[in-house]
Amino acid sequence: MKAVKRINEITDLMKERRMDILIIGTSSDLEYLTGLSSMVCERFKALFITKDKGYFFICPQLYYEETRQVLGEDATIFVWQDSEGFLKAIEEAGKDYFFLEGTTIGINDAIRGIDMLAIKAKVAVSFVDGSSLMEEIRQIKDPEEAALLKKSSEIADEVAREIMTYIKPGLTEGDIARRIKALFLEKGAEDIAFEPIVASGPNSSMPHYNGYSRRIQQQDIIVLDFGGRYQGYCSDMSRTVFIGEPTDKQRSVYEIVLRANLAAEELVKEGIKASEVDKRARDIIKEAGYGEHFLNRTGHGIGTAIHEAPYIKENNDTLLQEGMAFSVEPGIYIAGEFGIRIEDIVLVENGKGSILNQYAKEMQCISANI
Amino acid sequence: MKAVKRINEITDLMKERRMDILIIGTSSDLEYLTGLSSMVCERFKALFITKDKGYFFICPQLYYEETRQVLGEDATIFVWQDSEGFLKAIEEAGKDYFFLEGTTIGINDAIRGIDMLAIKAKVAVSFVDGSSLMEEIRQIKDPEEAALLKKSSEIADEVAREIMTYIKPGLTEGDIARRIKALFLEKGAEDIAFEPIVASGPNSSMPHYNGYSRRIQQQDIIVLDFGGRYQGYCSDMSRTVFIGEPTDKQRSVYEIVLRANLAAEELVKEGIKASEVDKRARDIIKEAGYGEHFLNRTGHGIGTAIHEAPYIKENNDTLLQEGMAFSVEPGIYIAGEFGIRIEDIVLVENGKGSILNQYAKEMQCISANI
Repeated sequence: MKAVKRINEITDLMKERRMDILIIGTSSDLEYLTGLSSMVCERFKALFITKDKGYFFICPQLYYEETRQVLGEDATIFVWQDSEGFLKAIEEAGKDYFFLEGTTIGINDAIRGIDMLAIKAKVAVSFVDGSSLMEEIRQIKDPEEAALLKKSSEIADEVAREIMTYIKPGLTEGDIARRIKALFLEKGAEDIAFEPIVASGPNSSMPHYNGYSRRIQQQDIIVLDFGGRYQGYCSDMSRTVFIGEPTDKQRSVYEIVLRANLAAEELVKEGIKASEVDKRARDIIKEAGYGEHFLNRTGHGIGTAIHEAPYIKENNDTLLQEGMAFSVEPGIYIAGEFGIRIEDIVLVENGKGSILNQYAKEMQCISANI
Repeated sequence: MKAVKRINEITDLMKERRMDILIIGTSSDLEYLTGLSSMVCERFKALFITKDKGYFFICPQLYYEETRQVLGEDATIFVWQDSEGFLKAIEEAGKDYFFLEGTTIGINDAIRGIDMLAIKAKVAVSFVDGSSLMEEIRQIKDPEEAALLKKSSEIADEVAREIMTYIKPGLTEGDIARRIKALFLEKGAEDIAFEPIVASGPNSSMPHYNGYSRRIQQQDIIVLDFGGRYQGYCSDMSRTVFIGEPTDKQRSVYEIVLRANLAAEELVKEGIKASEVDKRARDIIKEAGYGEHFLNRTGHGIGTAIHEAPYIKENNDTLLQEGMAFSVEPGIYIAGEFGIRIEDIVLVENGKGSILNQYAKEMQCISANI
């Protein structure tokens, strides 16, 4: 079997945390460790890593050939058929790898509760959360990963530039979302990283709004949040734009969010806590009187997953290190009125924050397209 | 709170199976029950149903407004902040709903193992698999749902018609996949139901192949598998086409798969077992000497999820009933050589099988586009 990336670090952490086995379901973790990115479906498939650096794979028959191709000729793969169910392969593997009784098994965040229950009903094992172990491994990007994140954010910038010339009254949110998707593919992303958020008018006060039917109108505010995937690595950016002239309140809120975004990004450097970056943005918004309208954490890590460690939030004492990459996305969301968010990806590089999105953040009022 | 769809049937099944609470994470189940289709992310959010027909929702702050809009003004929603974590809301809800000690909690398939572990560490409860309960509820489509499935499959047929005129040597698999995605949106689907599979040449032997880089060549075989979503309801169809003339072996295998597809579809009627439909397709392929190359079950149910009950597979004694909808997709996959699959959606209607895909299944050799 081809090497599992950073296996020594993983097994060191497993021993430290008393895990005998670590199970990695189909997820960005699995893609990161092995390059295998097969389809997520209800059929159980996972990489099992043992604390002595052994590993094997459990796989439904219909994924066998591609799994074999990626993992290599000498990989150990236990296969199960649709007519049998996956416990048969677990049992078989258990005999060879001696995890039938009393072992402690860590799971990553892609193992379903119902599959865990099924395994537990068959074998007397204890399960523990292994997701933070994988977070620690992945949150530091090496230079190759950093280069991919940069390229991915460059594509997002290009999409931002073009989508701004497309937006006009009469289009639906869905029209704009579809155009964003098409632009990512045109610009060389292999996929979008998540469904674009196009939240217009009063919908803009919902940070993760996912409707598509409202039509853009004169005097609208629009929160745009989108990202693509380039060689597996994600981008994620938000801009808020206006159709015609913003109100005084919108103008003032925009300035506050922009100040919070700029100040938090400027603070980023090696050695400070993740929570300090959050606090910088949060304090500015609080002092301006909108504290209760900043509904979420300031940011999230990014890599082969769109959300991963480090989370830029209150109470997170993680120290920023070279190679960490995360979003800075303060926002103010006033239910029933409007919301504003400005988001970039920041990479800790040469000790300080390097902002990967170059697209302008000054207030932008679209009228030329009308 | 607005009604949870089919709550009486659900609580009857809960009592029968001795569940005090049923937790439904963000999933097609949740959308089915409440209309709520918020974004899946690492933040815990779920509907909790109690056996006495009570229900409440646990929700991160940033999804609150849209959750409130969908669930209605009188819904009970326990909110948690990014800085707190979701266990705070679980604890709060637990006090009001008395599930702090000794209760049995069913989970659907969208509850992550790590979240289950976190709840269990906080509250002394037992978890059981509640996914089959939801499967039973959802597998019978009412006439309104059946109409949406039909419309969704019509769109897939239109996509099939157009994509056949686009395919030619020199394109990559990714070019074709992107075109399929664009066609679904053009034809009125709100989204694709899954990433299109375009498996060309030797890649066609992998049923769920998800690469995109190979270029289409003369004498290629291409398995196309795609589906869209129309008002939440999925389509899913596969056709296998040839560039130029197939080999004698390919021709013979195609005929076997087509016979299996037609015979299994023709068998569908109320009152027979799901496994009988599987057996009909499987026997034809076995008798032709390719049994070991039919790698998967014959089909899967379809609705608001792309894969759901009833599964058309060996050992499934489920009796087909009016309103069930599922794929019939026999295939022969010869590793290193090629694969062939032909798939339609079939609905049990007026006691017999109604085939929702009309696009031709006769062997098709593309040459006009070259």
